[in-house]
Amino acid sequence: MSAETTYADWIAVDWGTSRLRVWAMGRDGTVRARAASDEGMGGLDRDGFEPALLQLIEPWLGTGIQPVMACGMVGSRQGWAEVPYETTPCTPTALRPMAVPTQDARIRLFIMPGVSQASPVDVMRGEETQISGFLVEEPSFDGVVCLPGTHTKWVHISAGEVVSFQTFMTGEMFQFLSEHSVLRHGIAADGTDETVFAETVSDAISRPEKMAQRLFSIRAEGILQGLTPQAARARLSGALIGAELAAARPYWLGQQVVVAGAPGLTALYSQALGAQGVDTRVLDAGPLTLMGLGRAYATISETIS
Amino acid sequence: MSAETTYADWIAVDWGTSRLRVWAMGRDGTVRARAASDEGMGGLDRDGFEPALLQLIEPWLGTGIQPVMACGMVGSRQGWAEVPYETTPCTPTALRPMAVPTQDARIRLFIMPGVSQASPVDVMRGEETQISGFLVEEPSFDGVVCLPGTHTKWVHISAGEVVSFQTFMTGEMFQFLSEHSVLRHGIAADGTDETVFAETVSDAISRPEKMAQRLFSIRAEGILQGLTPQAARARLSGALIGAELAAARPYWLGQQVVVAGAPGLTALYSQALGAQGVDTRVLDAGPLTLMGLGRAYATISETIS
Repeated sequence: MSAETTYADWIAVDWGTSRLRVWAMGRDGTVRARAASDEGMGGLDRDGFEPALLQLIEPWLGTGIQPVMACGMVGSRQGWAEVPYETTPCTPTALRPMAVPTQDARIRLFIMPGVSQASPVDVMRGEETQISGFLVEEPSFDGVVCLPGTHTKWVHISAGEVVSFQTFMTGEMFQFLSEHSVLRHGIAADGTDETVFAETVSDAISRPEKMAQRLFSIRAEGILQGLTPQAARARLSGALIGAELAAARPYWLGQQVVVAGAPGLTALYSQALGAQGVDTRVLDAGPLTLMGLGRAYATISETIS
Repeated sequence: MSAETTYADWIAVDWGTSRLRVWAMGRDGTVRARAASDEGMGGLDRDGFEPALLQLIEPWLGTGIQPVMACGMVGSRQGWAEVPYETTPCTPTALRPMAVPTQDARIRLFIMPGVSQASPVDVMRGEETQISGFLVEEPSFDGVVCLPGTHTKWVHISAGEVVSFQTFMTGEMFQFLSEHSVLRHGIAADGTDETVFAETVSDAISRPEKMAQRLFSIRAEGILQGLTPQAARARLSGALIGAELAAARPYWLGQQVVVAGAPGLTALYSQALGAQGVDTRVLDAGPLTLMGLGRAYATISETIS
């Protein structure tokens, strides 16, 4: 790649527990290059972050000083540097990233703060940047954003502020149960069964307390009744998403809900909410992260230029 | 060890997913020797079972033919040989183990069947033998036996029969969440906090639908409010056991409940049930397995002698 096409105005970094993703950005928000690795926060000690980042962005560095805007678990206590949480209610588009010293003088690193909530006690890191990106596009949004993922967030937004939010471990439980638990023997690696999914969501919403036995019944049905691996996968995701919806009811009942995440997952949430009579709008979360980091870059570049 | 003291009348085998345990038994039920290994069913292919067993029991084999009575996942589809399920209602003390051919002529292997239930669909393998052992001691028991473990079973027993049962994945979820999920950072390896446990059980029973958010709040409280690792452990076990009790209510409400399992775990169940006004009797499950296998050995030895 030539220097002209890849040299970035700034670099965007989404650094989660298991993945590191970087983008070479133009000042106008265009993506000039991208790269990714498995050097997530979870596998690095404090001295490992800078080499892991440089390994990916080295080709983009020139003779000047490159601003790097990062969000996610990189800012947690186990991350590169701990960035204190902002507390709710707060304005995602006004969050101030923290300058973090680096060994390499060619980069100038900023890490976004997470958001915490005192009651019910809760935390987020990374999603605040996606919400900022969303609010850059829709500053007058009033309603609920659902961000399904490893730790799904339901976020109530009004007047540009995060009013309250709630986290569910649904994604992490799905991953464990489908890949590592006794259920793994009978669960397909992908695909779904829309009818089985819808039935299971409905059952889980109406009887959420039966979770731990509903999960084991997937195993028993596989053994005794020949439940197919695809139907088993649909049943597992239906059981977990249905239980989540039962608990998140105050967030979606009678609300305008935006579901932002990876496409396959947002489709499941949209279907489950639709069956409850809730209209959803689905967004791909990827661009939201870049828009949120871009917003933070704009704030910083006013200060430093 | 000398031949006189270790030579067994028969050999008892408890072969689960992760552990293999064997006992050299006297005809009168005395244990003459014991051994164990990590060669559980989960890590063996079909040809691996016999060598794994012989490695432990070789010192006990003499010149005659040694009966070996086995129960647990060794009889599952992924085990040494698949032993068909008996269906509920059934009489545990009358279960007939299946003869399974071996390469080594010095042993004569029998594997216990599991028990299945058509509706609600469910299966057990191993617990039927513990229940048989319990009924050998208390043939007229009428009530409920709770067997906490990786897959906790609640079993309704009447007139010597298993009338119905229900499985909960509580133990497997505890293990995953405490050792592998995001919660692992803040959870002690052992110990508990009785007050926190009691509070969390009570909250989980009254609002079981809040499971996935209750779990994540353990993480958030650790970060924001300094929840101690011991209190976090108590909160996790309280959340999971409380949700199980909410779902298993028809099994324990107004019933006589026997809790049989590993001592630390049965104490937690007994405390949680006690707070709901349920009197429990606690048993160590280990001897029940040997009594149940002994019952099956007695049945077989009448046939083969």
